[in-house]
Amino acid sequence: MEAEIVAVGSEMLTEDKVDTNSLYLTGQLNLLGVEVVQKAIVGDDRDRLTAVISDALRRSGIVILSGGLGPTEDDVTRDAVAAALGCGQTFQQEISDAIAARFARMGRKMAENNKRQAFLIDGAEVMPNDRGTAPGQWITAGSKIVMLLPGPPKELQAMFEHQCLPRLRKALPVKFIRTVHMRVSGMGESDVDQLIAPVYTKYTNPVTTILAGAGDIQLHLRARCDSAEQAEALLKEVSDQIADVLGDRIYTRTGQPLEATVIAALIERNETASVAESCTGGLLSQRLTATAGSSKAFAGGFITYSEAMKTQALNVPAALIEKETAVSEPVARSMAEGARNQAGTTYALSVTGYAGPGGGTETNPVGTVYIGVAFPGGCDVRRVQFLGDRERVRMLAAQTALDILRRKLRELD
Amino acid sequence: MEAEIVAVGSEMLTEDKVDTNSLYLTGQLNLLGVEVVQKAIVGDDRDRLTAVISDALRRSGIVILSGGLGPTEDDVTRDAVAAALGCGQTFQQEISDAIAARFARMGRKMAENNKRQAFLIDGAEVMPNDRGTAPGQWITAGSKIVMLLPGPPKELQAMFEHQCLPRLRKALPVKFIRTVHMRVSGMGESDVDQLIAPVYTKYTNPVTTILAGAGDIQLHLRARCDSAEQAEALLKEVSDQIADVLGDRIYTRTGQPLEATVIAALIERNETASVAESCTGGLLSQRLTATAGSSKAFAGGFITYSEAMKTQALNVPAALIEKETAVSEPVARSMAEGARNQAGTTYALSVTGYAGPGGGTETNPVGTVYIGVAFPGGCDVRRVQFLGDRERVRMLAAQTALDILRRKLRELD
Repeated sequence: MEAEIVAVGSEMLTEDKVDTNSLYLTGQLNLLGVEVVQKAIVGDDRDRLTAVISDALRRSGIVILSGGLGPTEDDVTRDAVAAALGCGQTFQQEISDAIAARFARMGRKMAENNKRQAFLIDGAEVMPNDRGTAPGQWITAGSKIVMLLPGPPKELQAMFEHQCLPRLRKALPVKFIRTVHMRVSGMGESDVDQLIAPVYTKYTNPVTTILAGAGDIQLHLRARCDSAEQAEALLKEVSDQIADVLGDRIYTRTGQPLEATVIAALIERNETASVAESCTGGLLSQRLTATAGSSKAFAGGFITYSEAMKTQALNVPAALIEKETAVSEPVARSMAEGARNQAGTTYALSVTGYAGPGGGTETNPVGTVYIGVAFPGGCDVRRVQFLGDRERVRMLAAQTALDILRRKLRELD
Repeated sequence: MEAEIVAVGSEMLTEDKVDTNSLYLTGQLNLLGVEVVQKAIVGDDRDRLTAVISDALRRSGIVILSGGLGPTEDDVTRDAVAAALGCGQTFQQEISDAIAARFARMGRKMAENNKRQAFLIDGAEVMPNDRGTAPGQWITAGSKIVMLLPGPPKELQAMFEHQCLPRLRKALPVKFIRTVHMRVSGMGESDVDQLIAPVYTKYTNPVTTILAGAGDIQLHLRARCDSAEQAEALLKEVSDQIADVLGDRIYTRTGQPLEATVIAALIERNETASVAESCTGGLLSQRLTATAGSSKAFAGGFITYSEAMKTQALNVPAALIEKETAVSEPVARSMAEGARNQAGTTYALSVTGYAGPGGGTETNPVGTVYIGVAFPGGCDVRRVQFLGDRERVRMLAAQTALDILRRKLRELD
């Protein structure tokens, strides 16, 4: 079964309003095995809304509307649904009385225009609103289901949960949904896709979605089956094949961010880490400390933005910086070793590079970053070349540094 | 002129993704006097997307698509637009070469499927993407304008600003828009609004928008007039009244973030700063170094997450931490003074507190943060109590610390 969601209201077309009702509705529908295949956002325009509803009804079995059920001329959802279905509307004294009673409880008199809210589309069931004045409507028209829900999230959610869900459960076949959320580091989106497309394109169930961030690819797999066991088995079948292809590039199957994976690995090994950051300027520390409980494994770091700080805080010899420049393999090594010594940690990461827009040399242009990892008995340094603006270079450098530490902890290289 | 916006991608139909690109686009279009009349969100489904684009083209003069321009089978926007317009597509060696060159600069080889991104719809102009691989396309078809933009917000925004806006300005009737972008630190949204509402509600032009961030309120004033002089005079009239009310809480009239304001003030005074961070864990450093050229004024910092690091890196006496605890006025003072001495800077900020969810004491519950600022001849410490989760406490602490340094530099207190 497929659903479409239509948010109604000209305020939803301004530059600071997003339709969050559809997120709640999507979550609820997915749990029932219903896919949301399209969403629309329409202003308070009767004709335009009528056309949108007609199109949605032609395509999908379920159409859910939020908003536009108020008492003013602007509220056109009832009229548009009636027009799209080719139905009339009838004034219902009972609904009007219920609205009037609600006003009375607040010590107020119902305004005349609230009577507009008492019109019921022919064939609809009224859904009382215990959190506001606008009643909802539930319509079964042939094989189609239409729901008219109020716009305020609290009203919509209460009505959906208490009145739509029980009706939907009766109307739909039972399905079970399970998901897996893998994350991959150190690969581009197209490289990941090229490797795993031969796997996931064999399956329409589970559905695989790929999301790309800076140096971080997320794979969402969602299976929808007649039993929970079936869904889980299907997910295992597909995710095992993906794991075969991507191997240790996958750092989690639970959606956990890379920094949390690193912190968890350190805690598991009862080890600690520190950092020495130049071009990332605190980004690496900030990510490592974003995880609650990170103080168990992360001692701290040194943001050595100036050359003097590298010497003062990390004992990087001034002569070495003079000879090699601050963005070089030996300085990255000295920074990592200095941080490890000063902080007394098992590991230390160092990052030094040209984030841009200024800086860079012929051999080490903007985007060049040296990343060091000091560990018991040694220190590795990697030179990486990133592309993008200052922010992107910094993000990619922090991500790569975290992945280098992850691989070191997992003894992968 | 009316516009519709279509967000493409199955991930946009999940329960945790909202289409924020359309908010940016709406803001930009409104500035040009273009109204957004409808929005759609469609999955990676060629036929469905083709139908949505055809409908939108029938109704509106401008159709903007975001997403679905990637290299995979899933990326169907190019095909759907071509189908809706009844056009073919042609492989462009130049585009392919540009993508390959981008990969080469990263030291990588272009994957075969990236060639999909080199197909140009007949009659379209290619819009190069300097922040990603997916090029955009601009199409003028009769009286209609269609734009194909990449999904990642940074790529979309850069492309819209640099390549779509100049084309749109040529295509649309001339109006002069001028904006002022004030930012306010250290006040809540409702307090700001209460003070300035008597001013801005007197005017329908300029339009005033208030945007609230963590400890940071942004005021956008937008005037739209027949001449640039008119628009500027009107903005001056209103922003001067707002400045009268908010005074030195306003830290910029040009939209510059707080960290950039602080860096600029330091450079102007030919002074330097360093930081000692505990609970903010690098956030403060990361913000200060996010500004290009910050190395002129920011020497670096110490992320002293553990007690040992506070002693080792900043010379905070272990006995002092033992006696007062790490979250205390004397330790904040010692951290700021230690950072200033170690880094040899004019100023140093320190932050120590309980970000949560764990930690905190009866007298200093979660959310308590001590912020120190060491300066030539002294050190001030302020105790602040923040409300919210770990991330919010960390963000508010960093923001407040920056504002304390700004006020010190401007000799405001």
